[in-house]
Amino acid sequence: MSRLDSFIRRLEAQRACLDHAAELIGGLDGVVLELGLGNGRTYDHLRSLFPGREIYVCERAVAAHPDCVPPAERLILGDMRDTLPILRARLGGQVALAHLDAGSGDAEANRSLAAALTPLLMPLLFRGAVLVSDPEIACADLAPLPLPDGVPPGRYHLYRRL
Amino acid sequence: MSRLDSFIRRLEAQRACLDHAAELIGGLDGVVLELGLGNGRTYDHLRSLFPGREIYVCERAVAAHPDCVPPAERLILGDMRDTLPILRARLGGQVALAHLDAGSGDAEANRSLAAALTPLLMPLLFRGAVLVSDPEIACADLAPLPLPDGVPPGRYHLYRRL
Repeated sequence: MSRLDSFIRRLEAQRACLDHAAELIGGLDGVVLELGLGNGRTYDHLRSLFPGREIYVCERAVAAHPDCVPPAERLILGDMRDTLPILRARLGGQVALAHLDAGSGDAEANRSLAAALTPLLMPLLFRGAVLVSDPEIACADLAPLPLPDGVPPGRYHLYRRL
Repeated sequence: MSRLDSFIRRLEAQRACLDHAAELIGGLDGVVLELGLGNGRTYDHLRSLFPGREIYVCERAVAAHPDCVPPAERLILGDMRDTLPILRARLGGQVALAHLDAGSGDAEANRSLAAALTPLLMPLLFRGAVLVSDPEIACADLAPLPLPDGVPPGRYHLYRRL
């Protein structure tokens, strides 16, 4: 399998999980939180999935397509290890869906970052909220959810906040 | 349609066209030429499709994953408007398949670059060679080929050198 093949598979899995998560939180109020803006493609997808919800985005420094930059009042700039604790006063217990795809092409570094962010993220999610994540996350407050059709175990990750 | 959707569709079309082109040149000798290395994903895909062929890559400056950098003797560094004419002495009439996906996210700039490169590329392709291109190309020496199943007209481009 080439890097092109595996990249396509990852993006297809990412999209399938986001689409599935949108169904899962369909009956729940709450805001959406994107952890890592990157080029803005998944933020744009979240916008299309959630036209009626506020979407907050955490990012160290914006490098996205100009069309995919969130409004300033919902863009939280800085290292997420610093900004997530501050965000608690504003969004504590109000997030229905978070998506974590931060970091680099280095899978080990991404898992390490996710492990550091998870305890800072938990207070923002209400009980029953959904977390979609590229890296696997081990956390007693998160229960793995079944993946949508066509996404094999481990390719992308879905959790329910307990 | 979100940017994530359209990006996935573009990558799927790109892969389908490269796979199809590999079948089309299956009975032909000749080398492969990648115009634009980028992150190296399509180069890696070409390597998987053509384990027995020499693959030459033109790129201004290498920014690919270290695993996806071609050997120095088949990496032609520099602006392609300068390097393609020089390459003629080495590869003139020897290329069976070229893939053009150079430039940026700016479609108009990509078409303009493709128009500048096409006359420089033609002497490298032998008659019957296949050109796979992201931008559409108008050239009297190129005949459009049918796209593979699932790729609608205009999403990616396939040509036969006349």
